[in-house]
Amino acid sequence: MGELNLTSAVSFMVSIQDDLRAVETLMRSQADERYPDLQSALDLLLSAGGKRIRPTLTLLAGKMLRAKGEPLLHLAAAIEMLHTATLVHDDLIDGSLLRRGMPTLNSRWSPGATVLTGDYLFARAANLAAQTDSIPVMKLFSETLSIIVGGELTQMFSTRCKADRTNYYQRIYAKTASLFETSAKSAALLCLTSELHTEALRAYGYSVGMAFQIIDDILDYTGEQATLGKPIGSDLRQGLVTLPAIYFAEMHPEHPLTINLIEGNCIQDQDVLDELIGAIRSSKAIQQSHQEAIQFVETALNHLSIFDPCPERLALEELAHHVVDRKF
Amino acid sequence: MGELNLTSAVSFMVSIQDDLRAVETLMRSQADERYPDLQSALDLLLSAGGKRIRPTLTLLAGKMLRAKGEPLLHLAAAIEMLHTATLVHDDLIDGSLLRRGMPTLNSRWSPGATVLTGDYLFARAANLAAQTDSIPVMKLFSETLSIIVGGELTQMFSTRCKADRTNYYQRIYAKTASLFETSAKSAALLCLTSELHTEALRAYGYSVGMAFQIIDDILDYTGEQATLGKPIGSDLRQGLVTLPAIYFAEMHPEHPLTINLIEGNCIQDQDVLDELIGAIRSSKAIQQSHQEAIQFVETALNHLSIFDPCPERLALEELAHHVVDRKF
Repeated sequence: MGELNLTSAVSFMVSIQDDLRAVETLMRSQADERYPDLQSALDLLLSAGGKRIRPTLTLLAGKMLRAKGEPLLHLAAAIEMLHTATLVHDDLIDGSLLRRGMPTLNSRWSPGATVLTGDYLFARAANLAAQTDSIPVMKLFSETLSIIVGGELTQMFSTRCKADRTNYYQRIYAKTASLFETSAKSAALLCLTSELHTEALRAYGYSVGMAFQIIDDILDYTGEQATLGKPIGSDLRQGLVTLPAIYFAEMHPEHPLTINLIEGNCIQDQDVLDELIGAIRSSKAIQQSHQEAIQFVETALNHLSIFDPCPERLALEELAHHVVDRKF
Repeated sequence: MGELNLTSAVSFMVSIQDDLRAVETLMRSQADERYPDLQSALDLLLSAGGKRIRPTLTLLAGKMLRAKGEPLLHLAAAIEMLHTATLVHDDLIDGSLLRRGMPTLNSRWSPGATVLTGDYLFARAANLAAQTDSIPVMKLFSETLSIIVGGELTQMFSTRCKADRTNYYQRIYAKTASLFETSAKSAALLCLTSELHTEALRAYGYSVGMAFQIIDDILDYTGEQATLGKPIGSDLRQGLVTLPAIYFAEMHPEHPLTINLIEGNCIQDQDVLDELIGAIRSSKAIQQSHQEAIQFVETALNHLSIFDPCPERLALEELAHHVVDRKF
C-alpha cells in the first residue's frame, strides 16, 4: 500500500519505470493550485496506489509501435485518471469505506464533494486525452466512458442474485475489459498503425481485461478478508452473481441452494449465505473459472503473435500471464 | 414548460429554428438503445425544456463566421449536453426536487442512478464535442468542465453568508459565464478565424454570461415563488450572498442586519431572514445590480462591433438584450 513502489515493480514494468513515474507526475499535476482541497483529494487517491496496470499496458503497446513520447505519456495518464474517476463514483454509490485497504474519499468527504471530485477527475482525464492531439483517441475515450457508465446503470436496474452467463460477460466487459481494450487500442490509434495491428491490440486488451475481472471475481471467493479489505463472498452478499457462482450452479444442479441462483432468489439468511459461499469456495467452480481466465490470456497471447518479437511484446506477454497469476 | 416550444421562440431564435431542432434530435439520440432507463432519463431531462440559450449562442456565432453545418450542430449539442449534465449533479447535491417547475431526476431516482446518469451525459457531451473533429474545441471543452466543477467545490468549502465581491465574480464566472464564454469561443475555434475575432466572441460570451447570472440572482429576490419554483431569497437562505445582498451591505452599512453580511454570520432565525430579504427586495440594491448587468451587456455589444453587420450579429445583439430583459 502507500505510494506506488516502482522499485519492487514486477518484471514487465521494469523497462518503463521512468515513463510510469512521468505518468504519475502528470496525474498529480492535474489539480489546479486554485483548489487546494482538490489537490489533497487527488494526492489521497493517487497515493492509495493501485497497480497501474492500465497505463502500463498503454505504455508498452505504444512503445512497441514507436509512439511519440509526450502524447503516449498523456494517453497513459488519461487512462488511469479515467479509471480513478470511475472508482470515486463507484465507491460513493456502493458506500465503500475502504479500497486497497485505504479509506475511500466518500468515507471522509460529503457525498456532494465526492461527486464533484469525481467530475473534476473526468474533466482532467478528458483534458489529458485531448493533449494527445488525436481525434480518434478522444472519440474512443468518450465512447469507453459511455460503456462503463451504461454498464453500471444496467447492473443497477437488472435482476440481482441470478446466475446468467450472458449478463455476466456483458457486465465484466463494461466494467473492466472495455477500459483494458481502450488502453491498448488507443495506443495503436496514436501511432496510426495498420488496421490489423490496431485490431490485434484491441483484442489483446479485451482478453486481458476479461481475464483480469474473472480473477478479481475468483479472489472475492478465495482471498483473505484482510487482503481483500472486505468479507469473503462480498459480491454474492450484494446480490452479484459472478463466474464462480455461475459454474457452481451449472455443475451442481442437485445442491439444495442452487435453485436460488437459477431463479434469482436473494438469500437473506446470513448462515445460508455463508453455507453457499463455502460450498462455492470448496467446489471445482473456482478451478473452472480460473481455467476460463487462462483461456482468455491464451487468446490475448495469440493476438500478440502478429507483432515482431521485441522487449515490449515480451513484456505484454508477461503482463497477460501476471493477470492470472496474481494473488491480490 | 414541457417540450421546447420553438414556434413561440424569441426573435433572435427565429433564423436558427431548424438548427435548434437538429440539435434537439442530436441530444435525444445520445442514449444508447441498450439502456432504456437512460433513454427515459434523457427524455425527462430534455423535455423539461430550458431556454437553450447556450446552443443558440453557439449556432449564431458559428453561422456568423460561416462554420460548417455538421460540426456546428454537434458543438451546440455538446454545449447543452454538458450544461444538462452539470445540472443533474447540482440538483442531486443541493437536494433540489424541482427545476423549471418539473421534478428533478434525483427526486425520482436513487442518488446512485442520478450520479451515473450525470456521468453518462458527461461522456455523451465529450463524444459530441469530439464529433466536431477539432482538438482546440476538445481542449477548451474539458478546461471548461474543470472550471465549472472547481468552482462548485470552492463554493462548497468557502465561507458562507459573507458579502464578498471578488468571491462573487469568481463564483458566477465558474458557474455560468465560463460556459457562455466557451459557447461563443468554441464556435470561433471551429471556424479557424482570426485571434481578434475569437477573442471578441470569447469576451462577448463572457459578458453575456456574467449578465445572465446577475439577472438570475436578482430574480431570486424579485421573482414570484410560483415562477421560481423555490422560495424568494432562496440563495441567501442557503448562505449564498449574491450581488443584490452585496450592494445592500455596501449601501446600507447602518442597517442592523448588515453586520451579518459583513462578518459572515449565517442568520438562523427565519423571521430575521425574512426581514433581511424583504429589506434587500425593496432597496435600491436590486436596481444597482440590474444596472451592473446592463453594463455587462453593453460590453458584450461593444465586442460584437468588430464584426460586419449581418443577421447573425443582429441576433446576437438581441440575445444579449434579452438576457437582461427576461422575467424568468
